[in-house]
Amino acid sequence: MSKKPLILVTNDDGMFAPGIKNLVNAAKELGELLVVAPDSPQSAKGHAVTMSVPLRLNKVDAFGPDVEAYECSGTPVDCVKLAKHVLLKDREVDLCISGINHGSNASVNIIYSGTVSAALEASLEGIPSIGFSLLDYSFEADFEASVHFAKIIISYVLENGLSDCKLLNVNIPKMPLDQIKGVKVCRQAEGRWVEDFTEGLDPRKQRYFWLTGNFIVDDNGPDTDIYALTNGYVSVVPSWHDLTRYPAIKSNAKLEEYVAKSNNH
Amino acid sequence: MSKKPLILVTNDDGMFAPGIKNLVNAAKELGELLVVAPDSPQSAKGHAVTMSVPLRLNKVDAFGPDVEAYECSGTPVDCVKLAKHVLLKDREVDLCISGINHGSNASVNIIYSGTVSAALEASLEGIPSIGFSLLDYSFEADFEASVHFAKIIISYVLENGLSDCKLLNVNIPKMPLDQIKGVKVCRQAEGRWVEDFTEGLDPRKQRYFWLTGNFIVDDNGPDTDIYALTNGYVSVVPSWHDLTRYPAIKSNAKLEEYVAKSNNH
Repeated sequence: MSKKPLILVTNDDGMFAPGIKNLVNAAKELGELLVVAPDSPQSAKGHAVTMSVPLRLNKVDAFGPDVEAYECSGTPVDCVKLAKHVLLKDREVDLCISGINHGSNASVNIIYSGTVSAALEASLEGIPSIGFSLLDYSFEADFEASVHFAKIIISYVLENGLSDCKLLNVNIPKMPLDQIKGVKVCRQAEGRWVEDFTEGLDPRKQRYFWLTGNFIVDDNGPDTDIYALTNGYVSVVPSWHDLTRYPAIKSNAKLEEYVAKSNNH
Repeated sequence: MSKKPLILVTNDDGMFAPGIKNLVNAAKELGELLVVAPDSPQSAKGHAVTMSVPLRLNKVDAFGPDVEAYECSGTPVDCVKLAKHVLLKDREVDLCISGINHGSNASVNIIYSGTVSAALEASLEGIPSIGFSLLDYSFEADFEASVHFAKIIISYVLENGLSDCKLLNVNIPKMPLDQIKGVKVCRQAEGRWVEDFTEGLDPRKQRYFWLTGNFIVDDNGPDTDIYALTNGYVSVVPSWHDLTRYPAIKSNAKLEEYVAKSNNH
């Protein structure tokens, strides 16, 4: 193993999105990079895994001769699995970074995010991981502040590791670098999508439905990621993979008795 | 609104999987059912959402004249969104049930599961939801015990609602009904997939990788879903959508200072 830390880089927007190029630039002096990214955009793919078809890996020259890079035909989660088990043959990875996503993954968007799901998958494999997202969907987004903070946060995790978690969900506000006040370690805000569908008829006169919607924040807590972002901070939510709602175990325990009474055997 | 509760039914194995037929049978006397299920198997699709292509809905006669049913061209999460906003035009839904999945969604499998993601999506829409999974992948699986317990658990939730959560992840052991001891309300066990890939050459001599793997349980806690299932109980994990690792907020707060020191502005 080389002395430089080994950093796995992935995303969900595909190899030629500006976000991953900027993430590579942020990280390339901090370790040896291996980039494995989807060969097509995979936004909102959540934690999807490909099982019913085989996957492909193609070596590409996307970041110059010093950065090994592969395109993968699968989802962001597939990229992490293939990188770890096929390309690295289970060699120890020091850090996985995913992004920089074009668009917010704050609040409940973490559930839908391919970017953070890739980082979550790496964390399940025991690799400390960070998902980075910039609150700007534009291809021409300004990544200066994102690169600045990504570099510092990556350095921190390489030097200190993570306490009590293996995954950070980092979101960067759409602001010039000199207006960002710093970083807040915080919790995921309550929020939800209010959906709508555009309806229409296709050229064969068949009805179709196309998803659209607005994101609503239901939570003004000053300890949330949305509050941090709205107030000019980079938000960092320490996250994990356990969806158990612990207080509800006790409060729903009467279900056990209800079933026992209903059972005739 | 009719007096019968309105129950939305979905799954990830598609409309013609035995699991959803059994779930419809379990629920049809308990309310008015609307079934919206994928038109192709969607296992391990996680919380994927379709945004880049339009979606289709086709009415089908899958469960006889008393049960309205639609096939959807998208993911399980898409099914829930289309049902709620297009078919039901935001009419209030009393319960969403998803499954019965062919195969376990206990432990960390909840993260990958299309079945539970559909229920989670409904819970984000404010609908009390239950994901049901049977620990048997076979098409010929015996659903007798699953139907028995699904009926009781659905009745419980319709009568009592859920406390402190809007989502139950229910797994049923692969056992005859008379050997199942009851229900345990419990937490998600720690576990992980140890991946492997089958490598090969396709007919055009191009290399492919096909996912395979074994599930490892790292957690022997008697309060876990895996423990309940192994010991002859149906497991019920009250779940939610918040991936924040709360104890890690405080323990990683020194990142805020580290960034402040690193910043030159």
